[in-house]
Amino acid sequence: MYHAWFAAQDDPNERYPLTEVVYYSRSGGLLEVQHDMAALAQRSPEEWKRLFDERWMRTTWPYGSGVWGKKEWVCPIVDNDNVVSMFEGGTNLFWAERFGREIGLEDLWIKMCGNSHTGSFKDLGMTVLVSVVKQMISEGKPIRAIACASTGDTSAALAAYGAAAGIPTIVFLPKGKVSIAQLVQPVAHGALVLALDTDFDGCMRIVREITANPDNGIYLANSLNSLRIEGQKTVGIEIVQQFDWEVPDWIIIPGGNLGNTFALGKGLLMMYELGLINRLPRIVTAQAANANPLYRSYLTGFREYQPIKAQPTAASAIQIGDPVSINRAISILRRFNGIVEQATEQELADAAARADRTGAYACPHTGVALAALIKLVQRGEIKRSDRVVVISTAHGLKFSRFKVEYHEGTLRDVIGQYRNPPIELPPDIDAVRREIDRRFG
Amino acid sequence: MYHAWFAAQDDPNERYPLTEVVYYSRSGGLLEVQHDMAALAQRSPEEWKRLFDERWMRTTWPYGSGVWGKKEWVCPIVDNDNVVSMFEGGTNLFWAERFGREIGLEDLWIKMCGNSHTGSFKDLGMTVLVSVVKQMISEGKPIRAIACASTGDTSAALAAYGAAAGIPTIVFLPKGKVSIAQLVQPVAHGALVLALDTDFDGCMRIVREITANPDNGIYLANSLNSLRIEGQKTVGIEIVQQFDWEVPDWIIIPGGNLGNTFALGKGLLMMYELGLINRLPRIVTAQAANANPLYRSYLTGFREYQPIKAQPTAASAIQIGDPVSINRAISILRRFNGIVEQATEQELADAAARADRTGAYACPHTGVALAALIKLVQRGEIKRSDRVVVISTAHGLKFSRFKVEYHEGTLRDVIGQYRNPPIELPPDIDAVRREIDRRFG
Repeated sequence: MYHAWFAAQDDPNERYPLTEVVYYSRSGGLLEVQHDMAALAQRSPEEWKRLFDERWMRTTWPYGSGVWGKKEWVCPIVDNDNVVSMFEGGTNLFWAERFGREIGLEDLWIKMCGNSHTGSFKDLGMTVLVSVVKQMISEGKPIRAIACASTGDTSAALAAYGAAAGIPTIVFLPKGKVSIAQLVQPVAHGALVLALDTDFDGCMRIVREITANPDNGIYLANSLNSLRIEGQKTVGIEIVQQFDWEVPDWIIIPGGNLGNTFALGKGLLMMYELGLINRLPRIVTAQAANANPLYRSYLTGFREYQPIKAQPTAASAIQIGDPVSINRAISILRRFNGIVEQATEQELADAAARADRTGAYACPHTGVALAALIKLVQRGEIKRSDRVVVISTAHGLKFSRFKVEYHEGTLRDVIGQYRNPPIELPPDIDAVRREIDRRFG
Repeated sequence: MYHAWFAAQDDPNERYPLTEVVYYSRSGGLLEVQHDMAALAQRSPEEWKRLFDERWMRTTWPYGSGVWGKKEWVCPIVDNDNVVSMFEGGTNLFWAERFGREIGLEDLWIKMCGNSHTGSFKDLGMTVLVSVVKQMISEGKPIRAIACASTGDTSAALAAYGAAAGIPTIVFLPKGKVSIAQLVQPVAHGALVLALDTDFDGCMRIVREITANPDNGIYLANSLNSLRIEGQKTVGIEIVQQFDWEVPDWIIIPGGNLGNTFALGKGLLMMYELGLINRLPRIVTAQAANANPLYRSYLTGFREYQPIKAQPTAASAIQIGDPVSINRAISILRRFNGIVEQATEQELADAAARADRTGAYACPHTGVALAALIKLVQRGEIKRSDRVVVISTAHGLKFSRFKVEYHEGTLRDVIGQYRNPPIELPPDIDAVRREIDRRFG
């Protein structure tokens, strides 16, 4: 009854099944997943809300997953038996009461997407991509492995979902640029990790070449594959659901390749079109100042856009100078009356540290979003009583080194204002009592 | 209507309110939380199940938490406004289909308790303890801070919950024995971290002394405080709930200080007593061979028990030679027809690596439990069709170093049979194709 397909961005009539091995339109552009909205509109908004609430985190396979609980909206063409799920979504919407009070907000929330199987929001999208591949294999398509070029969360999620499904995975990386420590998730999950004697662009060339010929039987999982967007878009739907279907005023999201900004908007627009919500939040995309091509474009009213060479940033997953999803992210930001803000290394590190001190455990990308928030509150764009959600994209446990260096005082370009190093004392009760009195009065 | 209190283990008539600052009975034994079971029995089993299902992961504060959704059974005396919660529990019950098949089981599940705010099961108990302290403060008790001596998950959870609540926390550690890297969670969460020039026992002495005198206003969070058990006990209830109230045949749990074995049994017995289940699973406590006092006692039919000096193990959180909860854990194991099994460093590391290759991401303690499982299946104690749940106590992300060393081949006392180091290749499509063919055929 429900149906979805790939469509060319520049020609919606150019269509492909979601189980076809195809990544580009005839003109070389990205493909996008489109849904049969007329079929979806046959159910009333109230019926959809009730269905989504009934399934929420419960036990009927695969609908307990936050992604697959919205299966009809995400990927209706996969048989339930082919779903590869690790109970994605349903992550805590953390009430950042103390952080909000510190910066002058009454109603601040942090969506803890990193509280997940592989520790980042990438699980939301990867469950969809790997499930579609399992569906293809069940239909007899000769797929031997799924591949990506990634040094971070994408390869971790791909390898984990592949391992759970029994589908081989391949991760391409530049030799010598990454350590086993950075790669430990794909290594542990049994991916074939190929360290090539070239740079990251060289790896991308090889992975595109090896996946371009369907005879090789290697399927591409990099972010130009739009299946992942369908899972990622549930984050916005889920936030609204967690507010009992009330729309917050602002959603702030870190942006690098910008697929996540697009996905957030896509999910919210689907809710709007199907009548589950009657207004849209404003979206803020937050970039590291060292990797800010979208921010620079925003300053021109999105009239101009220039790729840049991204500089190193602690927010390594968004250190991207030429985002794949630049155009579709800009269209989302226009539609959502969006803002783009940036954060320096100092600002993002201090913001993450303040969040940690008030109970969150922020990755540096979340630090970028929180630093952007602080600026918008200070400028008065975000009002004291506005309901604001910051999307935290990864678990802080993935960034122990960043936190260690911050508190040691060795983090590049940062003088930590919220450092909290251990205090050394003799094993003496009076010395301990004095130190406690000094700190807490 | 519902009520709970501390009772002395050796004299149930010796009672204290849960909001009293008291850790020991008059005879110096542990205190335990008792509930007014007669009041709880006024609701039928079916009503309890319906109530718990209605609240499960939903939005009404604080009942969406897996712990606070069972508030009447856990800690009825806390006002909802004083609950300090980060949406504990509700973690994925991962169907370990591939791992099970490899070892000859059809119905194997891993309860991913580490998929949580601070990355370990300790959140389940700490939310209760910190909430009770917030309740005490709201009632005017002069508490300035909460303290513990811990190098690991307990200090992380205490500091995070304290940070969220705005209640100061203190962590005591031996100077020089732990790095900022090990401490990064309490450091980041703003705990006062005191590094004392003594060993761990010396730290315990100081923390007991500073918390013993109520005038100091420092509340003790170490595991002899039984409030934490009340939250931890929900793990067993939650597992049964996730099977639509069916009891699995076996639950396997790693054991060090053994509070968790006791808590697991306590929750299941409460369900049994109140009629929600009509049989009990068998419980297996799994110990590292390097820290196995319970295993040694089990070999004597629990007739003898000797503390030992625990040797180093990768499963660092259970490297304990004289467990605080030895007696109450043994009574649980007797009641549940329990088994104790052990795992060497080699066995625990290989078991964790096999789990990772099939989609889990196992901490070394989970490796201990999985290695014990393998032995019990090989011995025929656990049958092919039995439904088995392994409790995973922490997120693998907390143990990157363990995994890196395993795959580098540098882990102490271990020759990893499932190592998966990266393959170095020239950036050449034919070389890549050959390697892929070699691996996947």
